[in-house]
Parts: sequence; C-alpha cells; structure tokens
Amino acid sequence: MSERGGHGGIAEGRGPLAAEAAALDAEDVLAAKRKDFVLDDTVYLDGNSLGALPRSVPGRLADVVEREWGRLRIRSWQESGWWTAPERVGDLIAPLIGAAGGQVVAGDSTSVNVFKAVVAAVRMAQRDSGGGAGEGDSGPARTEVLVDATTFPTDGYLAESAARMTGATVRAVAPADMAAEVGPTTAVALVNHVDYRTGELNDLPGITAAVHRAGARVVWDLCHSAGALPVDLDASGADLAVGCTYKYLNGGPGSPAYLYVRRALQPRFDSPLPGWNSHADPFAMSAGYRPAEGAARGRVGTPDILSLLALEEALGVWEGVELTAVRAKSLALTDFFLRCVRAYVPEGRTRSLTPEAHGRRGSQVSLLCEGGVDAGRAMEALIARGIVGDFRRPGVLRFGFTPLYTSFADVERAARVLGEVTGVTG
Amino acid sequence: MSERGGHGGIAEGRGPLAAEAAALDAEDVLAAKRKDFVLDDTVYLDGNSLGALPRSVPGRLADVVEREWGRLRIRSWQESGWWTAPERVGDLIAPLIGAAGGQVVAGDSTSVNVFKAVVAAVRMAQRDSGGGAGEGDSGPARTEVLVDATTFPTDGYLAESAARMTGATVRAVAPADMAAEVGPTTAVALVNHVDYRTGELNDLPGITAAVHRAGARVVWDLCHSAGALPVDLDASGADLAVGCTYKYLNGGPGSPAYLYVRRALQPRFDSPLPGWNSHADPFAMSAGYRPAEGAARGRVGTPDILSLLALEEALGVWEGVELTAVRAKSLALTDFFLRCVRAYVPEGRTRSLTPEAHGRRGSQVSLLCEGGVDAGRAMEALIARGIVGDFRRPGVLRFGFTPLYTSFADVERAARVLGEVTGVTG
Repeated sequence: MSERGGHGGIAEGRGPLAAEAAALDAEDVLAAKRKDFVLDDTVYLDGNSLGALPRSVPGRLADVVEREWGRLRIRSWQESGWWTAPERVGDLIAPLIGAAGGQVVAGDSTSVNVFKAVVAAVRMAQRDSGGGAGEGDSGPARTEVLVDATTFPTDGYLAESAARMTGATVRAVAPADMAAEVGPTTAVALVNHVDYRTGELNDLPGITAAVHRAGARVVWDLCHSAGALPVDLDASGADLAVGCTYKYLNGGPGSPAYLYVRRALQPRFDSPLPGWNSHADPFAMSAGYRPAEGAARGRVGTPDILSLLALEEALGVWEGVELTAVRAKSLALTDFFLRCVRAYVPEGRTRSLTPEAHGRRGSQVSLLCEGGVDAGRAMEALIARGIVGDFRRPGVLRFGFTPLYTSFADVERAARVLGEVTGVTG
Repeated sequence: MSERGGHGGIAEGRGPLAAEAAALDAEDVLAAKRKDFVLDDTVYLDGNSLGALPRSVPGRLADVVEREWGRLRIRSWQESGWWTAPERVGDLIAPLIGAAGGQVVAGDSTSVNVFKAVVAAVRMAQRDSGGGAGEGDSGPARTEVLVDATTFPTDGYLAESAARMTGATVRAVAPADMAAEVGPTTAVALVNHVDYRTGELNDLPGITAAVHRAGARVVWDLCHSAGALPVDLDASGADLAVGCTYKYLNGGPGSPAYLYVRRALQPRFDSPLPGWNSHADPFAMSAGYRPAEGAARGRVGTPDILSLLALEEALGVWEGVELTAVRAKSLALTDFFLRCVRAYVPEGRTRSLTPEAHGRRGSQVSLLCEGGVDAGRAMEALIARGIVGDFRRPGVLRFGFTPLYTSFADVERAARVLGEVTGVTG
C-alpha cells in the first residue's frame, strides 16, 4: 500500500501511521522527560522558537522573587549566589555545547553577544596580521568578515556594525562555500550551526578546520542547535560561539544568551563592551579598566537575575540526559514527520526545504507551501486545531522537534492535521 | 539641650528624636505607599542599590510564567503583548524622568545602553562637524568625549570603548567643571545626575544648556536619581539618557535598563547595536538593515520578558504619585538623617560627603568613616542589627532613602544604631 494519501477519512480518527507512532513512543528512552514540562493537548512544535515551560521553574522563580529578593534583598548578591550566576549558568550550558567548564558565560541577548564575539575575533585577527604591537605574522591585513549568507538576520546586522567599528568589511558567503572562500584576508567567519529557516545543519568541525587552515577565526551561532544535537566546540577547536537559551534550552521568553570563548583565547578577548561586571575587581570601583580572567571577561553590566535563575532551573532538566540519545530521537522524529507528511499531505501542496541526509539535518522541518497553499493561513488553521508551529514569510511552515518532550504521537497528529488543512485551504 | 549625644542609654530604648520621627511619619503624604512593598522589621536603606519587592510582583510574575509562557507559549508574543513590552515599559518610565511618551525603551543593561548612547551621540556630533556627508558645519572636528570624573566606573569604561571605536578620545572632567570645559572639539558629555558615591546632585538643566551652547551633545546617567526626585529631560532639552530600574524604580535584581532618545534626534540615532528588534520590519527577516522609527530604534535583541514584565508590574506603584511629593519627602528624610547622625553618632567618627544644600543633594547620604572606624566592619555590625545600607571602599557608608517606603522612624533607628556601632567599634 502506498503511504501517499489524501485527507478523506483521516480527519475523523487516527491515521494509518498512528500505530507506528505508538510503537516508537513505547521505545523512546527519553519519554520520561516529557513529564518535566508543562504540556497540554496542544501539539507544540515551536520549541525551536520558544521552549515549553519546565515544570520546576515556577516554584524556583517564586522563591527567587519572594525570599531572595523580597526578604534577603541586597544580601542575596552574596548569600543567594546572584553575583556568580552568569558563570554558574554558563557551566551548566557548557556540557550541552561540548565545552569544558570556565569558558561560557550567560547574559545579554544573542545580538549583543554576536557583537562582542565578532569584534573580539576581528581584533585578534588584526593583531595576528601585524595591526597590533609585535604579535603580527607577515601576511596581508585581515580585514574581512565572512558572514553566513543564510544567517538569522540579526547576526548579519551586528557583524556589519562590528566591521564598521573595527575597520573591516563584510561579505556574505553560503556556508557550503565558506571553506573555499576563507583566505589570507579573512579575519573571522560567522556561521550558524543550523539554518533557522531550512533546518540545515552546517559542518561545524569541517568549517572550523578550514577557517583555521586559512589562519582566521570562527564564531559559531548555536541558537538552533544547542539542546537539539551534540555540539563539539572544544573538540573542533572552535574559537568563539554564541547562542540563545529560549529555544531548545527552555529558558523562557527572551532568556539570557551565552558567549563561549575558548580558554586559550580568553587572555586575548578584548571586549567592545567592557562593563564593570567584567572588571578584575568590580567593587574596587576604579576609574581604570582591568579585565577579569576567564569567562567573566565576557560579562558586561549587572546580570538580570530573575531571568538568569529561571534559566538555571530550566537547565536542570538536562541532568542525566545523553546528547547522543537526544540526537537519535531528533532524527527519528524528523524522519517520521517527513514520512507522515508524504503519507498525509496531498501531493504538490508542500515541499521540504530540510535536507534528507541525517548529517545535514538539524531538529526542525521546514515545508515550503506550493500549489496555491497560503502558508500564513495554513499555520493559522493548524494553530486553531491545536498544532503549533510557526510561519516565516513568504511561504515557509516551520516545525521544531524537541526531543525532551515531543512524542511520535504528536508528530503523527501534526502531519495528519496538516494534510487536512492543506487539502482544505489549497 | 545639645543634639550631639553619645551612645550611652540610647541602646536600650528610643532616642531623643523618636517623638519627632513619629510626628513626621504622621504627616507623611506618601506613608500609605509603604504597604505596597514587602518589608519586615529591617530598616532597609539600600533601595539606592536594590529596591524592595513591590507586593504585586510575585503574583504578576507567576501569571507570566504559568499562563503566558506555560500555557499560551509562543502565542504570547502577540496575545500577551510581549513583543511591544520594551516600548510600553518605556512609556511607564517616561513620566518619572520628565519625558513625553515614545522616547524611552526598556531593555539591556545600563552599560550596554551607555555604549549605544555615547556612540550614537559621537556619530551625531561627527556628522554635525562635517565628518559625514553634507550635513556638517564648518567648525573643527568634534572628537572628544567628556566623562564625569566621578562617574560610576562602568560609564567610563564604556565611554572609552565607544571613543576607541568611533575615533574619539575621552577626557575626565568634574561635573562642576563641565560647563567650563566643554568646547568646540567636544562631541558629547556623559554626566551622572546623582553621584553614586557621595549622593551629590548635578545640575542637569544647567550642564545641558552649557553643553548645547558649545554645540555638543549630552548623555545623562539617571541611575541614582530616577524615582527619587523629578528629572526634567524634555524641559531641559537633554539629548540622550540611560538609567537602571533596580534602584528607586524597584524592578528587581538586574532588571532591564532604559534608553531615552529625544524625539527630534531619533531619526539621527545610529545604533552600534542594530539588532533585529530595532529593524523597521523585523519579521521580514531581510538581509539588509533598515532601522525602526521612534524609541524601538534603541532595541537590540529579543527582550527579556520575565524581567521586563516584573518591572512593568513594579512600576505600577507610581500610579498617582507626585514626584514633587517624592522630592519633598526625600529631602525631609535626608535632612532628618543628618540631624539624627549629629545627635547620635559620637563626634569625629563619621563625616558626611553629601552636600547640605538641597539643590545639590540626591536621595542618599554617604558618610566617610573617621577616627579609627572601619567602614566595612561598621556596615557588617549595622546589618547584624537590622540596619541595611552598603559600603563602598575604602571608607564610605551609603544610606539610600526611598521615599515610597522609608519612614522617619526607620531613619531615627538607623542613626541610633549607627551611633552605637561607631561608638563600640571606634
């Protein structure tokens, strides 16, 4: 029997792949994690935009607000560990991105961290190429910033600003061409690990090695990969990385982002945002700036404690989770979704933009609407029927699969309703 | 009878000024506001560092977390008004700093906002002086940033970075000398409204006028004034301003800061941090940056919603509060504290660094310890006895007076215990 189906009959009950979904769920080694999140009968496939609420966060945040702020007040900067939260939370993120401790600091937005990372990397490259005092090699000036041409736009905007303010220029390069385009005038390449629009996974170790062969630095944006698949920063020798925590890390809306600076580069990290929190002795309140050692050098101003401690609590769900299991389930979820879409969605209505090859796929599936299907209206109809993904103009439906709480039954139901919706609206 | 007393006898009971404190409390038109805060039998005089918890915040934050994030999830960006929170919160701050609506945006840290403001102001000045295309006057290049020599250190560090990245230089100038030192090569002056260390109030209208007469721009740091006294940004013609919200605005530890850009200057605000949230059409996800109109141009990345909405709730306590009443009570509190200190603290143990003249005093009193009193140990002893101020190296005790919840009885008790502590430890 062909898996390609129409939408007749499926609307009333479970589809032909429902039994398979149930079998996959029964074998899911991460299934028990689902109870750590607040979920309902919605199929939530937008965890790649805003992760679901971990069940323990409200209680922890209430304690932070009512006891730590309300009763201990200013004493909590020491007694409740507020002051050291950026590094402590950074060390909870570290194992999720393949980093040893002491290299990650949480705080600020991804955009702000992109700016810090690109400026710092350009400055390192400028010194490497002789722009600084005595450290230079004898090559040409490294004045070019290569930016992933498919990047989430904010990275490009901030890279432009970083280049403008350091005397560099920016050139957009497709990630697949990055290895070929990087060269002796490249200062830094800014690349996304997973493409936010298509879900394509870029080759972090390969691109890092190519950038290094050319003598340049690489900054990775992990927003769409961390928490969905293993990221091997240390093993790959990546220089710097940034990421958000409100997608697969479930930190809450707009929760603090993070910055990774490889340990060997920390002494050379010259921040464009040298706020008092990054000072070696912040409470000396001295007029002269002297940067802290270690990850704290990436801090700027007073950390946003309510959001940071909500994030810290949210990161607790990763205890005991193996990222290889996360990756295996992620691929199984997206494989199964693609199969269900082929089975349930009428031919010619959607086309996957997400690579079939596992090695090139993140944890989302992006479907381009075709055949007269209006993607915006299709997503509205999906949401009205309890299937939450999101829509990116002009015609892309995005579905994110979060291995800690997405079930195969969710996947089957989502594809089934998508079939109905694209059948009706097409 | 002399008000100068020792500490004998006062330890056991109320001091000679207790009756006067009670009378002042009975006349306090803001006394009813105290019940809007979570307080206990501690005398909390550190609201100039971390404001007390407004009583309604825990409930609001629980709703944001459990319903808006937990149940509505991604839909809350629209349905719960998350997306527009930075401007909405900015408009709640605006009347507290003398600004009409549409000129303030909340988000990021004070340090990050100092960087945005100083870079943007230098760029305006560079264009004014002919560095840009066709807008220039014929004067010399405006390449100097004057920084308040008594500034909270982070402002100076960020001003240095802003100058380094825009081809300008920095010179430290005492606020009292600012009017005399500003000149034809000045791009921007960065000044604190109230000195964090001494509590001295600088002349915002006067310095603003002097800077403008010299053709330069002024950036005000309102961290230690907003919420404690009226700030007349619009009326004074101030160009840009920044401030934090966790002191007199009670937004919580590390709550989002704010940026004010005078409406007439908004079209010329050229941000060094042009994140996607400041784009005219952020969801177009276009590769080219086109800045938003209005206050949103000061945004950077995704707003930190938990902290931002806690702040929004905290700002509700200002409803119906007249800033003239706040200022009158603030001065009455600091006057009374200085009198109580004279009455209770043994001579030669402390000396006030805070100006006597009302026109030069903010809402804190800083006492320099003398006569062998160790300020750090004195503050520890005060805290152990329920009087919470803070300590700034090497020898300063700071006491902040927050008119919405500090009582005159608090003031009397604090000075009484200070007398005992400095008597014992001296």
